[in-house]
Amino acid sequence: MQRPENIAGQELAGEVLAPYLHAQAGEFLRSLRLHREAGPDNHSSEEAARALRAAARRISGTLHTFRPLLDPEWADRLRAELAWLSGTLAGEHSCSARLTRLLDALHRLSGPGVPAPRGDAGTLTVGAARAGALLERQLTLARTRAHSAALQALGSSRFHAVADAVALLASEVPLASAAAAHACEVLTPAALEAEGRLDRAVAALPLARAAHPYNAEALVQESESQDSPWHQVRLLLRLHRYAQEVLHHGLGEQDSPERLIAAGRALDRHRDAAEAASAASAAARTPRIAPATAYALGVLHADQRHDVEAARFAFQRVWQPVAVTAAPPAATAAP
Amino acid sequence: MQRPENIAGQELAGEVLAPYLHAQAGEFLRSLRLHREAGPDNHSSEEAARALRAAARRISGTLHTFRPLLDPEWADRLRAELAWLSGTLAGEHSCSARLTRLLDALHRLSGPGVPAPRGDAGTLTVGAARAGALLERQLTLARTRAHSAALQALGSSRFHAVADAVALLASEVPLASAAAAHACEVLTPAALEAEGRLDRAVAALPLARAAHPYNAEALVQESESQDSPWHQVRLLLRLHRYAQEVLHHGLGEQDSPERLIAAGRALDRHRDAAEAASAASAAARTPRIAPATAYALGVLHADQRHDVEAARFAFQRVWQPVAVTAAPPAATAAP
Repeated sequence: MQRPENIAGQELAGEVLAPYLHAQAGEFLRSLRLHREAGPDNHSSEEAARALRAAARRISGTLHTFRPLLDPEWADRLRAELAWLSGTLAGEHSCSARLTRLLDALHRLSGPGVPAPRGDAGTLTVGAARAGALLERQLTLARTRAHSAALQALGSSRFHAVADAVALLASEVPLASAAAAHACEVLTPAALEAEGRLDRAVAALPLARAAHPYNAEALVQESESQDSPWHQVRLLLRLHRYAQEVLHHGLGEQDSPERLIAAGRALDRHRDAAEAASAASAAARTPRIAPATAYALGVLHADQRHDVEAARFAFQRVWQPVAVTAAPPAATAAP
Repeated sequence: MQRPENIAGQELAGEVLAPYLHAQAGEFLRSLRLHREAGPDNHSSEEAARALRAAARRISGTLHTFRPLLDPEWADRLRAELAWLSGTLAGEHSCSARLTRLLDALHRLSGPGVPAPRGDAGTLTVGAARAGALLERQLTLARTRAHSAALQALGSSRFHAVADAVALLASEVPLASAAAAHACEVLTPAALEAEGRLDRAVAALPLARAAHPYNAEALVQESESQDSPWHQVRLLLRLHRYAQEVLHHGLGEQDSPERLIAAGRALDRHRDAAEAASAASAAARTPRIAPATAYALGVLHADQRHDVEAARFAFQRVWQPVAVTAAPPAATAAP
């Protein structure tokens, strides 16, 4: 059998996989310590929680992509616990971020603080302040609940079990026998599979439509249920990025290619805008709100759905920049 | 003095200008007869009114651009009367068109008639039907009023005076002495001046911003008062087109260049979307409407303002297609 010649291929799979998992587990534990030391409700605490979630995502993604090289039962159990932990910890941050996004949008939509002239402008000015107050009330309440849930989670025995499992992972990875094979035989193929899943999911996206600016598709009601393939691509892109990190970890190349970062950013924006649009829509279902408030929430919802569309356009542009070149004016001119 | 060599230049200005005005006046009278014969409220009547307005616009534009070649007092008086007539006749059609545009948008926004799933979808479904009924009521009332006003105008002595003036114009144009000069000395310069006014107005538009898709500028409240430069360019583009028609009339070239047609279409769309957005916003100020109705009107308003933005993008693309080529992905990727 032919021996692999490239550097990564010469190592055993476990020798590439284990150091990456050790490093991420170490990062998880470091962030956890920082989070405890920072105390509640400040910037350092938020930063630490963010780093903790990032490490948890990387560990979880690696367990998923390279599952055949690991003790599968252990990997599945740890992944489920990390998903629970990430989800619980993410709630507070995502409520804050959503509120900021929506208030910024309302501020932008109601113009730069000039005295409202008569006509169109008035309708929005009246409602925007009330809509902002309503969203602030609802999302602050949600954030408070998420905060309590996170505190409760961090004090639970379930959390301590996760922390113990990660602490163990920092020094010892439960490898399967397949991890004793050369990296190019088992590690690279698993990473390629992750890339293949991403490519297939991207191929199924309506990118041609997204490439046409102002297609107004994201605002159509039914299309909101069509967000999920994009959300799915966001997760698959992340798994692909982490798999690449594993492959390049030993080579000292830490950064993902700019293209993957930019694509991920567009898909994050897609998700954030979609969730913000839902929050605006949900707020509009509050009983007994004033029509002006409902009107402002309608404008806000549409604005965020347009940002969903803009994010799809941005993703498409990063992913297949060739397809974006301007159509000749004749095409635009056609009736 | 050097003599002009081109074909149009060899003719006298009046010999170019008069036949064009004769032809348009003839078209005006023909459309007027068709409109009378068609009877009220049918497709032929609408078509005839449209042709009548088109002829009135061309006569009026020509009187404006080539005013130095005409009896100025007569030209100003006829222009004022044609403006009154066009405005009165346009009301009914623009109410119908606006209603159609808004109902189509509501239909599109509330999706393809599927049973609404729970969640976001419901909010819009409930309100869209009510918003549609409200808009239909308001715009149908406005259209009925415009129809009465048009009927009254067509029966007035003021109208008969305009029709008489146009009938006279079909055979005789009150030229000024300057019209006896060669076309290249007075007619072409006047047409170039119209083009210059257009170019300066276009140069003052924020085209660089419009070229960037999803800039979200048109939805900002204050920017609605920034529609007017675009509306102004729409009128100047029309004057330029008609001036070109005059110059080429004698040469048998009737059609405007495709680029001017497409640019005009984009600016018509800009105007229509802006007016539809205002109508949605105005409807939202109706007292005692349900919050769901107001919400749907907010979504509709934002949708139409996005179409304003899309129309600016389309205009920019027709006008200076070079500037639209896709930025390299690195630019998109930058934070």
